[in-house]
Amino acid sequence: MTDQTIDPEVAARHAEKMAKKRAARNKIMATKDKTGGLLIVHTGKGKGKSTAAFGMVCRAIGHGMKVGVVQFVKGKWETGERKVLEAFPDQVSIRTMGEGFTWDTQSLERDVAAARAAWEAAKELMADPSIGMVLMDELNIVLRYDYLPIAEVVETLANKRPDLHVIVTGRNAKDELIEAADLVTDMTMVKHPFRSGFKAQAGIEF
Amino acid sequence: MTDQTIDPEVAARHAEKMAKKRAARNKIMATKDKTGGLLIVHTGKGKGKSTAAFGMVCRAIGHGMKVGVVQFVKGKWETGERKVLEAFPDQVSIRTMGEGFTWDTQSLERDVAAARAAWEAAKELMADPSIGMVLMDELNIVLRYDYLPIAEVVETLANKRPDLHVIVTGRNAKDELIEAADLVTDMTMVKHPFRSGFKAQAGIEF
Repeated sequence: MTDQTIDPEVAARHAEKMAKKRAARNKIMATKDKTGGLLIVHTGKGKGKSTAAFGMVCRAIGHGMKVGVVQFVKGKWETGERKVLEAFPDQVSIRTMGEGFTWDTQSLERDVAAARAAWEAAKELMADPSIGMVLMDELNIVLRYDYLPIAEVVETLANKRPDLHVIVTGRNAKDELIEAADLVTDMTMVKHPFRSGFKAQAGIEF
Repeated sequence: MTDQTIDPEVAARHAEKMAKKRAARNKIMATKDKTGGLLIVHTGKGKGKSTAAFGMVCRAIGHGMKVGVVQFVKGKWETGERKVLEAFPDQVSIRTMGEGFTWDTQSLERDVAAARAAWEAAKELMADPSIGMVLMDELNIVLRYDYLPIAEVVETLANKRPDLHVIVTGRNAKDELIEAADLVTDMTMVKHPFRSGFKAQAGIEF
């Protein structure tokens, strides 16, 4: 099937190089022995922040973990995500703030109250000892607009149960949150299909 | 519950600002009317490349889509992912290359043959008209080591069915692939828990 021929000398060099890589990797990994709940932040302008968090939630469910999800922005996590999560009803608690932040709200007072209600729900989930992972989807947008005081949020997250994983998503993560986090990934936009005129599509955007 | 008081003038400015943002956003979105299968690439050194792809796969399943998954690297997509996907057996085809690339292989010939076999499986899934999304997990690593000719892969992907979504993951995506893609996100590492001595944990790394 293949027209690729392999020079035995090239193959020998390859084997040696890979053995070195493996040895280096094993040496590094042997020093990693801590376990415990992580504070994880997905930020940046690119796609994949909430999607990767949803992937982590699904994976945790697959491992038998119970997870909590709080949506700080209304209208996300619609049919696609819900149908999958609903296949595991005993393992998932979703709190959607019916009045959560949207570009359509235009009422600061209502936005602040909705952010506060979502945050209280998040704290409840964090306090449930049966829950191993809490996703706070788009918390960053609420913090960016100062709908919740960053100091209060960071203090609560820093004092979470040591075995609890918390994932925070959204653009423009505040420095204080990044400082407190164990794992931070910036989803950097290289190319976006909107630029080529594609609209949001099932499975991709929602 | 909250000690945040809101100045009415601030609230009015907020409403006006949000209305402008919404209008601008609506205007932009109205120009996006294309639909169709996307070629999506998740690359970069940060976490979330495969996890976001897994999240997209789950979301697509939630929308009733049939998906194909090819793992170009052995030993990934273990218990966590599988248990979730196995809840939707009619919608998921997974092809795991038993002899797929690992750091332990150290045989160039075997790696090239495994990459070729996985690529043939990927092409089969792409040719199945009932499948709406194909994930080629860690294809980039195989391309990086030239186990498959980049020109052949890009040509095949560029000529995919117009309604098929293809997701390619892995570090060091080749320029030719990025050029051909509709949506490219670089998962940029800001902080990694290995640096603080944490080892790989269920739900997070696997």
